[in-house]
Amino acid sequence: MPRIDDIATPALVVEGPGFRHNLDTMRGARPGPALRPHVKAFKSTGVAQVLAAAGHTAFCCATIREVEGMAAAGLGQDLLLANEVLDARRLGAVAAAGARITVAVDSVETIAAAAQGGVREVLIDVNVGLPRCGCDPDDAGRLADAARSAGLSVRGVMGYEGHLMDWADRDAQAAAVATSMTELRRAHELVGGGLSSAGGTGTYDLHHWVDEIQAGSYLFMDTHYARVGLPFVEVLSVHTTVISVDRRRRWAVTDAGLKALGMDHGNPAVHPDDGEVFFCSDEHTTLVPGEHGGTWRVGDRIRLRPAHVDPTIAMHERMLVVDEHDEVIDEWAVDLRGW
Amino acid sequence: MPRIDDIATPALVVEGPGFRHNLDTMRGARPGPALRPHVKAFKSTGVAQVLAAAGHTAFCCATIREVEGMAAAGLGQDLLLANEVLDARRLGAVAAAGARITVAVDSVETIAAAAQGGVREVLIDVNVGLPRCGCDPDDAGRLADAARSAGLSVRGVMGYEGHLMDWADRDAQAAAVATSMTELRRAHELVGGGLSSAGGTGTYDLHHWVDEIQAGSYLFMDTHYARVGLPFVEVLSVHTTVISVDRRRRWAVTDAGLKALGMDHGNPAVHPDDGEVFFCSDEHTTLVPGEHGGTWRVGDRIRLRPAHVDPTIAMHERMLVVDEHDEVIDEWAVDLRGW
Repeated sequence: MPRIDDIATPALVVEGPGFRHNLDTMRGARPGPALRPHVKAFKSTGVAQVLAAAGHTAFCCATIREVEGMAAAGLGQDLLLANEVLDARRLGAVAAAGARITVAVDSVETIAAAAQGGVREVLIDVNVGLPRCGCDPDDAGRLADAARSAGLSVRGVMGYEGHLMDWADRDAQAAAVATSMTELRRAHELVGGGLSSAGGTGTYDLHHWVDEIQAGSYLFMDTHYARVGLPFVEVLSVHTTVISVDRRRRWAVTDAGLKALGMDHGNPAVHPDDGEVFFCSDEHTTLVPGEHGGTWRVGDRIRLRPAHVDPTIAMHERMLVVDEHDEVIDEWAVDLRGW
Repeated sequence: MPRIDDIATPALVVEGPGFRHNLDTMRGARPGPALRPHVKAFKSTGVAQVLAAAGHTAFCCATIREVEGMAAAGLGQDLLLANEVLDARRLGAVAAAGARITVAVDSVETIAAAAQGGVREVLIDVNVGLPRCGCDPDDAGRLADAARSAGLSVRGVMGYEGHLMDWADRDAQAAAVATSMTELRRAHELVGGGLSSAGGTGTYDLHHWVDEIQAGSYLFMDTHYARVGLPFVEVLSVHTTVISVDRRRRWAVTDAGLKALGMDHGNPAVHPDDGEVFFCSDEHTTLVPGEHGGTWRVGDRIRLRPAHVDPTIAMHERMLVVDEHDEVIDEWAVDLRGW
């Protein structure tokens, strides 16, 4: 097996043992259908196959492309597009081919699109505090009625408390999640149906009512989520090579930059601690000495931990999985990119 | 021809007339070989073909993948990898297949890699002030000697004054460029060779000595570059659809987010001015009313201007070109992504 240091850079690398720890930790807390893994975090049917083998066979998607790819890979047992669409024809085609497809709706327009597109099942998406999609809880029953009138089966409700994911104070966070879920529960009583879906990596252990949690980042983590104190470990990094060193002015330049790293949460971090990121360019990251490190040589390998895992993975074609000896033991294609 | 509003969103769209204006404006200032268009900005052989037809037949690349793809598309007349690499074997293979390949070097290690990889021509990359790659000007002659001793042909020098691209004060910018180019010129005297290469979109008209400018962003522009006051117009946007509206709290949500928009320079802008971007999520952008606009309906099309063009394009599989009537007149595959 090749060692990871023999692979060309930039390379997106997953530390296998930590990944397994994350998977097992979540599975212990939310086994089988209590977790609906969110495909948007990894965009890979290879990762989804691992999750399905671990008992999580219902998945959550953010794009139609993700739904199509999951179904084509034989993972269409229960696919929820946890997002609104105004043209559901491609979803309808996937459903007609035999997959179970449910789509989130929060308006009469998205209900009409689901019905016209040939989707048969919906969840009423309820706003529980995040300024994004989801109907007012008071409108949820009316929308469920409209959906049923349009011939759709209403499976229940979903509500994503995305504004509560990264709170440092877990007691306050738990109280805020409870408040959000009071809203979702009220909507569920108006809507009916058997399913309630909510949550994410940051709140996975703070839900005591919903049937399933929508989480994906827990598998990989990032420097942003790592600050919260969850029992999941960071296992994803972009492996880079030092291509230039300025000894006089003491900086080094690696061969991966902002086209290989999701930047919306800020700069990546050097791992293990061996200097600090000064700035990222398209295909470079300039490092300067920190408290530790800073004696780089051309050819050194540097691992950069992303600040946000989801967009980072979406920039790569594949993830390489390494064991505890840094030998490459698996490869997962990032095959669900685009729209 | 389909109208752009009939195309599924998110879609990356180029306004054709403005693109042609940008191309012609630059061509007027830096015709033919006086411009070496930078492929990293667009990662598309389709765009490169347009530039080649306009007389710019030498190109600049940032990754080996870009070099390989350009050569495979018959655009290998003069390809410069303006970046350091420690494994040049793939470049050597492209050269052996008949393309003219030049690679930047700034150390004995990158010189050795070029020679061992089968690349025959190099430019000495000189640091002219940006804390990134490039040798000290005083070392340039020694490196050129080392390259020639290794059997390489030294074409000359390059130096990228990337720290000077977005200055608002053009007189001060011109003076700073002149200082940077004094360094490059001093290095060139030590190095020899016929070619000097520098610059970018922000300084394209401030160079009076170098043979060629490396620029790519000028074709599309972005909200960051637009602030500088160059004669190029913004022509790139991500077309989105409003999928959810919260009338009570007055926000709207579109179906493209930070996986469709380079975020390293900040949030995108709504174009034309019809509200403000509140925040971007993976696949959503939440808008709030600004001075203008804010009366969105579900199904409305919203155009988002990116803050940084290069990483935005790299997130998409294709660009659609529209005419002044918003009819789709061309499609360019973004076929040079990855590494």
